[in-house]
Amino acid sequence: MASTVNVGILGKGTVGGAFRRLLNERADMVEEVSGRRPRVSGVLSRGTGDFDRLLARSEIIVELIGGTDPALDYVTRALEEGRHVVTANKQLLAQHGPELVAAARKGGAQLRFEAAVAGAIPVIRVVQESLGAIPIEKVFGIVNGTTNYILTEMARSGLSYEEAVAQAQELGYAEADPSDDVGGADAAAKMAILARLAFGAPVKLEDVPYEGIEQIKPDDLAYAKELSLSLKLLGVAERVGDGEISVRVFPCFLYPGHPLAPIEGPFNAVMVESPAITEITMSGPGAGGAETASAVLGDVVSVIGGGSPLFEENAKLRIAKDVEMAFYLHLEVDDRPGVLAQIAEVLGDNEVSVRSVVQRGLGGEAQLIMVMHPVSEKRFAAALRKIAKLKFLRSPPRSIRVIEEEWS
Amino acid sequence: MASTVNVGILGKGTVGGAFRRLLNERADMVEEVSGRRPRVSGVLSRGTGDFDRLLARSEIIVELIGGTDPALDYVTRALEEGRHVVTANKQLLAQHGPELVAAARKGGAQLRFEAAVAGAIPVIRVVQESLGAIPIEKVFGIVNGTTNYILTEMARSGLSYEEAVAQAQELGYAEADPSDDVGGADAAAKMAILARLAFGAPVKLEDVPYEGIEQIKPDDLAYAKELSLSLKLLGVAERVGDGEISVRVFPCFLYPGHPLAPIEGPFNAVMVESPAITEITMSGPGAGGAETASAVLGDVVSVIGGGSPLFEENAKLRIAKDVEMAFYLHLEVDDRPGVLAQIAEVLGDNEVSVRSVVQRGLGGEAQLIMVMHPVSEKRFAAALRKIAKLKFLRSPPRSIRVIEEEWS
Repeated sequence: MASTVNVGILGKGTVGGAFRRLLNERADMVEEVSGRRPRVSGVLSRGTGDFDRLLARSEIIVELIGGTDPALDYVTRALEEGRHVVTANKQLLAQHGPELVAAARKGGAQLRFEAAVAGAIPVIRVVQESLGAIPIEKVFGIVNGTTNYILTEMARSGLSYEEAVAQAQELGYAEADPSDDVGGADAAAKMAILARLAFGAPVKLEDVPYEGIEQIKPDDLAYAKELSLSLKLLGVAERVGDGEISVRVFPCFLYPGHPLAPIEGPFNAVMVESPAITEITMSGPGAGGAETASAVLGDVVSVIGGGSPLFEENAKLRIAKDVEMAFYLHLEVDDRPGVLAQIAEVLGDNEVSVRSVVQRGLGGEAQLIMVMHPVSEKRFAAALRKIAKLKFLRSPPRSIRVIEEEWS
Repeated sequence: MASTVNVGILGKGTVGGAFRRLLNERADMVEEVSGRRPRVSGVLSRGTGDFDRLLARSEIIVELIGGTDPALDYVTRALEEGRHVVTANKQLLAQHGPELVAAARKGGAQLRFEAAVAGAIPVIRVVQESLGAIPIEKVFGIVNGTTNYILTEMARSGLSYEEAVAQAQELGYAEADPSDDVGGADAAAKMAILARLAFGAPVKLEDVPYEGIEQIKPDDLAYAKELSLSLKLLGVAERVGDGEISVRVFPCFLYPGHPLAPIEGPFNAVMVESPAITEITMSGPGAGGAETASAVLGDVVSVIGGGSPLFEENAKLRIAKDVEMAFYLHLEVDDRPGVLAQIAEVLGDNEVSVRSVVQRGLGGEAQLIMVMHPVSEKRFAAALRKIAKLKFLRSPPRSIRVIEEEWS
């Protein structure tokens, strides 16, 4: 008879329940592939039950309670006492990753967290293992399914932002309070985790500037449609210049043909670029209960299989203070002579170079739609602050980044 | 000082050279992430050098000589003597996979072969590890970059098959003798490997029927263009019916919007379907020297990291004797009354149901383009044999499979 491996579960919510069911369902198969049979040694929810007792009788702790309190304490203690930990908790990892890796090293335990980023897409494993010794240039993609669903619906059906959010909530793609998703904080946490793995750099959550999609207007999507562009909330982690990296989250227009352009609805997709492999793209559904439970089970099987995921440390990399991007700029202006000249002057003073300008509408409806050549984000932001003060603006300026380069 | 790990390399060709360079280049990083520094303990080419001596002084053997002789002997001995093996040799694995897994078990050694399938895309790792305990329904995709390049160029520039092959050869995407690629044998070997991992079933190379792209005509691509279809050489491994699987390779039309439709040029892409994860798609460049070397290095790092990849065994699954597919049928016929009736009769007799018929051209140029509803491949083949004998056919009938279902 095969030996058993005791799995203690923290969390009785949707994901906790789905994982528990899946583990029971797949126990035979886990035994077959790994030689050991998993057995649930206990289930605690947040703040109930005796963690010490669970710890004493578990070889693996699966943390699905979310948040950092008491998850940080529980996970740290488990690792330090030599229990392997599998977690789906992106906030915990984004805020306390290095401490947890240190605790795992101290206890000789494994720490795995495939489910924390991009649902069923095994991006953590690929970055950490397949590409563990390959110099990664850039990891980027759509890592929040809620916002991708909302943007897809706004583009497809012309819904307003508010209508699309309400629809996403109805279908269970957005939470009652969707602010972490739509504001970009969720994607920022995931990108901090990915950046740390891709570059071995000690990226902190506060190193990741983020913008969400709350300010996106149907106007912007109409513009995108006209030019066959897609609008996505992108997370980007990349090397820029010498010894610097940049990690950030922002809404962005993508040219048609970009590998991320066809990713629609509540899907995630991540691209990894490296000279050694050109680029690989992975896509799949975002983190529903079943996808998360499946990713957690994959980690549990890997833990039973033994071996340890690898963490590079490269403290020399610095966070870049500035990067270059192309921008689209949408201005609602009074329709009178000299307006464009004044805007162009502000842009020129800040060395922002204009690639195209189109005026739409007349009189009280006049809009200027401008696209800039790639430019320092700081200089563009400085120009934008000055433009915002111009008297003839009828509403605050709106800008969205653009990726226009041709692939293939 | 970190301990070293001795890596013996079999193969001095393009991939062997690329791997040797990459290993030297990345030795620092491998040491950093794994704690051990790789060192090349020797390099043999096919039939030169003393393998026993190399074996004695290597902890890991990297097999890049290709073919089965002497690769099978070398790899088997290495595994049985407890040396971990990393190989990119798909023929070896497709023909002798189960014996090699047995040798690895006997010697307590690891056997890894990410580079054997789909270049830099880590599909082996994902199927074997992330999804190791998940019931996979279907693994399919474009696993041969040469044929995808040829089909892309035929579609894009209207080249004939022969012209596209010549162009692929010029650019280094096809070998001087491209028959393994264009005939489908290369893709069949890869699908046998993937099927074995996905289902744990003892799939042999002879269980995988394959067709290549040599018969594809510009006509077929013109038809595809007209209907916005893409033509791809697909490898499919899937569960069909109760306790049966089917593994096969064939050219196929894909409807627009299919995740594999936008994969162009010498790229590979693989989709994995399972109820637990819906579907994930992975794409990237096919197996050039750099991509293969990078995949081999990833495996070497995993071997150093310890742990063992998992092999499920499920001898109960049988190879299905028949499956259902939709077909396109292209017939060059004499343009006279009764022709369609006779063809329809043959199809009807074999229970093949016609979904659409279009006649193109007149007189000596007349063509019938028919699309069938999904039908037993055997029944369709039987009908095709009868149609081929009809007197009014001006050339042998040509058929291509079609995937038309709507996704999303």
